[in-house]
Amino acid sequence: MTELPVSNAACVGGGVIGAGWAARLLWNGVNVRVFDPDAQTEQRLGAVLANAERALAKLTLAPRPAKGDLTFTSNLAEAVEGAELVQESAPERLELKISLLAEIEDHAPAEALICSSSSGLLPSKLQAGMKRPERFLIGHPFNPVYLLPLVEICGGDLTTTPHIERASALYSSIGMHPLVLRKEIDGFIADRLMEALWREALWLVHDDVASAAEVDDAIRLGAGLRWAHMGTFQTFHIAGGDGGMRHFLEQFGPSLKWPWTKLMDVPELDDELIGKITEQSEAAAAGRSIAELEQLRDDCLVSILQALKSHGAGAGNDLAALEQGLYARAHAGVDEAAANDDIDLGRPLRLLEAVVQPDWIDFNNHMTESRYLQVFGDATDAFFRLVGMDQAYLDSGRSYFTVETHIMHLGVVALLEPLYTTTQLLAADEKRVRAFHRLHHGGTDEVLASAEQMFLHVDATARKACPAAPELQARLRKILAAQADLPQPVHAGRSVGQKK
Amino acid sequence: MTELPVSNAACVGGGVIGAGWAARLLWNGVNVRVFDPDAQTEQRLGAVLANAERALAKLTLAPRPAKGDLTFTSNLAEAVEGAELVQESAPERLELKISLLAEIEDHAPAEALICSSSSGLLPSKLQAGMKRPERFLIGHPFNPVYLLPLVEICGGDLTTTPHIERASALYSSIGMHPLVLRKEIDGFIADRLMEALWREALWLVHDDVASAAEVDDAIRLGAGLRWAHMGTFQTFHIAGGDGGMRHFLEQFGPSLKWPWTKLMDVPELDDELIGKITEQSEAAAAGRSIAELEQLRDDCLVSILQALKSHGAGAGNDLAALEQGLYARAHAGVDEAAANDDIDLGRPLRLLEAVVQPDWIDFNNHMTESRYLQVFGDATDAFFRLVGMDQAYLDSGRSYFTVETHIMHLGVVALLEPLYTTTQLLAADEKRVRAFHRLHHGGTDEVLASAEQMFLHVDATARKACPAAPELQARLRKILAAQADLPQPVHAGRSVGQKK
Repeated sequence: MTELPVSNAACVGGGVIGAGWAARLLWNGVNVRVFDPDAQTEQRLGAVLANAERALAKLTLAPRPAKGDLTFTSNLAEAVEGAELVQESAPERLELKISLLAEIEDHAPAEALICSSSSGLLPSKLQAGMKRPERFLIGHPFNPVYLLPLVEICGGDLTTTPHIERASALYSSIGMHPLVLRKEIDGFIADRLMEALWREALWLVHDDVASAAEVDDAIRLGAGLRWAHMGTFQTFHIAGGDGGMRHFLEQFGPSLKWPWTKLMDVPELDDELIGKITEQSEAAAAGRSIAELEQLRDDCLVSILQALKSHGAGAGNDLAALEQGLYARAHAGVDEAAANDDIDLGRPLRLLEAVVQPDWIDFNNHMTESRYLQVFGDATDAFFRLVGMDQAYLDSGRSYFTVETHIMHLGVVALLEPLYTTTQLLAADEKRVRAFHRLHHGGTDEVLASAEQMFLHVDATARKACPAAPELQARLRKILAAQADLPQPVHAGRSVGQKK
Repeated sequence: MTELPVSNAACVGGGVIGAGWAARLLWNGVNVRVFDPDAQTEQRLGAVLANAERALAKLTLAPRPAKGDLTFTSNLAEAVEGAELVQESAPERLELKISLLAEIEDHAPAEALICSSSSGLLPSKLQAGMKRPERFLIGHPFNPVYLLPLVEICGGDLTTTPHIERASALYSSIGMHPLVLRKEIDGFIADRLMEALWREALWLVHDDVASAAEVDDAIRLGAGLRWAHMGTFQTFHIAGGDGGMRHFLEQFGPSLKWPWTKLMDVPELDDELIGKITEQSEAAAAGRSIAELEQLRDDCLVSILQALKSHGAGAGNDLAALEQGLYARAHAGVDEAAANDDIDLGRPLRLLEAVVQPDWIDFNNHMTESRYLQVFGDATDAFFRLVGMDQAYLDSGRSYFTVETHIMHLGVVALLEPLYTTTQLLAADEKRVRAFHRLHHGGTDEVLASAEQMFLHVDATARKACPAAPELQARLRKILAAQADLPQPVHAGRSVGQKK
């Protein structure tokens, strides 16, 4: 197995941010000990982990590593003992964090990386009294930590470059995008941008130009849709037309100085304004609880991340990188298992696990027809990967194409039901493969659907059939021989509407 | 056909915004005359329309209306004659707009709605000299106008409520989301928010805290992903945990006054800063032209809008509303055609047109297997809609379920290739329907794939088969009789791998 740069981590503080870190780390196979002085935190931690589990199951079909082990403790020394990463996410009070850092240093390994999730405190101030301040830095994430890739890295005066680089590699390995600040600055980068927008939003509500919901609409129905994948500079670079950013700045620069705004200060957050904003925000939630809003948020984020991945844009690239790592680790595991004869080739091969996702559901609240073939297609991909069709093979211009498919729908599948597939090899020669997939319910093992498929090995450049590479043929023969005694599936060889 | 509230519109000014308006209106079946004094504009207009066509073809599979007619003219009187909506999108100069409005009033119908796309000028100033100022208002859209739903509506002192309501209905009918300002204010809502963020972003680059690309990453990998569907108030409402917005404001309100920011003024846009930002923005574009960036932006927006639609969130609701209107208009059209025997039932029924979308493509650059079944599933939906399975029927708990499918892959399909389907009815009784879909290339008519499918009519509540409603059975018999003389498809009745 390809090793992650971290195996054991400690999360100091188990609030929303600390729990989000724990969820991301655990899902990526890292063992996590969570410290929080409040024993009640353990229950809230469970709720965040359940949300994360739900969202991450939908985020990717890539093989996930075995989940890390979770321990909850109210003993700080126990939490940080043996940790390679200590991620501190305590409340934003300088004295509290300084005293926690001292205690962490007393018990954590001397070489442990110590990072603070602080969104506002300067690392130079936090590290000033540390014994080994060179390995301390800010690693500032965004909520929900288990989905959003951004993590701002900011070292203080005493932080050394190798530790910045180590933190970057570590965060990258768990699917995050490290953004290293060039200068230490209050509020780092993202929060300064968010606060600028927020101050303006508060004035608009204060002055009754718009309600909270209308301000949100002004963002999410317009500029917010662009910010999700381009940010602000690329948006305006495009807005400049063929002249790009220079033209934009020359044309619209002057209007920046128009007296448009009151954001030179902040409206007084008195009871009246707090009440007004609270009331409007609750009205906009339209009766949905925070827990329901969190799940809706996660569903939207998952779909947006997947959409951006398909276009190779923004946060989609970070998801793609995460999946590439997951596949690499899984392939390494399969090769190892195959070498050790760990896989029983004599049974239908269980190659794919999935969960029915919300956008797989049709107007009958059942899994949409085409999603069955998508799952069978993923099972086919997994089968041919096992046989040896990796990226290098595909890059050589050779591949298997599906030429014929017969699907039987035998049961119905509803939202979030767990699924797995098994694949039986019916026939194979140098060019052709005939296989039979079954889609099972993950709980009951019931067969929900089956697909008999014929594949043809082709030279994609020449656009004609050709023999598969000898090593693929050898693995196919090995599987075929091992499965020779399996009974023929009852639905193999059927035509549509055929009498039994 | 359900009528749109507008049939003829004039776009005064054919720049990026005016062309975007034209594209949105045309696609929704509105005839558009574009006026621009610069004859060169016609060519640029064509480029925007081509981009819009490309994006809108991917945005929805809902039946689109016949496109409106486009006329380009450098004669303002000709452009606005007979228009029900005049949308002015000239450069942001008060005197220019005032003189254009006077000329528009001289030639447009007295009852025409006159709207300005201005992002910064106050409607009261623009309308002060008009003869009929009550029908003038701001309708401020966002780029690309053909994709983003937001339109800010702001009336001036002399604008009357019925015209605000008329504009709202009109913009809604072409898929937009009108946001009516409660007060007339410089910069309206969205631009004030965007400028606040932009000023902060400029300082970060000016002070070398981050490059333009890094600021964009700080947005698009974190908060931007949330802004796309929630805006800022709901984000913080969730961040407050079970205590919601009130808890958030009480906890984080004070930090708003920390001296974090320099945005009290704007950095001097001297040559040095303009050069720096331009250079960094071009570097971030990584060699992609503005035209390429525009298409990438559109692809991301299309996918994000589709994702949000599947979750019933934000801009996805506006897309859903647009589609609902399109289906309503198409159904009205089908019923009319069926009543007039306009549809030739004796031939395989051509019910679906589609274009291969970027996320339909696999690692071989061909259409992914499961997308074939998705297109066939859409053809099935269209077929049963024709037979009478509308939303009311589905709501009664009855539906057809697919029980068996046989697919033949006969050709390959690549990105953006046009497709259409035909459907031949092979058999039907009171519960069962057997049909044969063919997927054709839109240009060559070549059959790329076929699907033979068996459907069973079920009572979804009782989860068992039951007879279809008599009127559905009657329509099925009518189609079956009309198609009785069609030859049996050569691939009907095949099993996988069967010899010819």
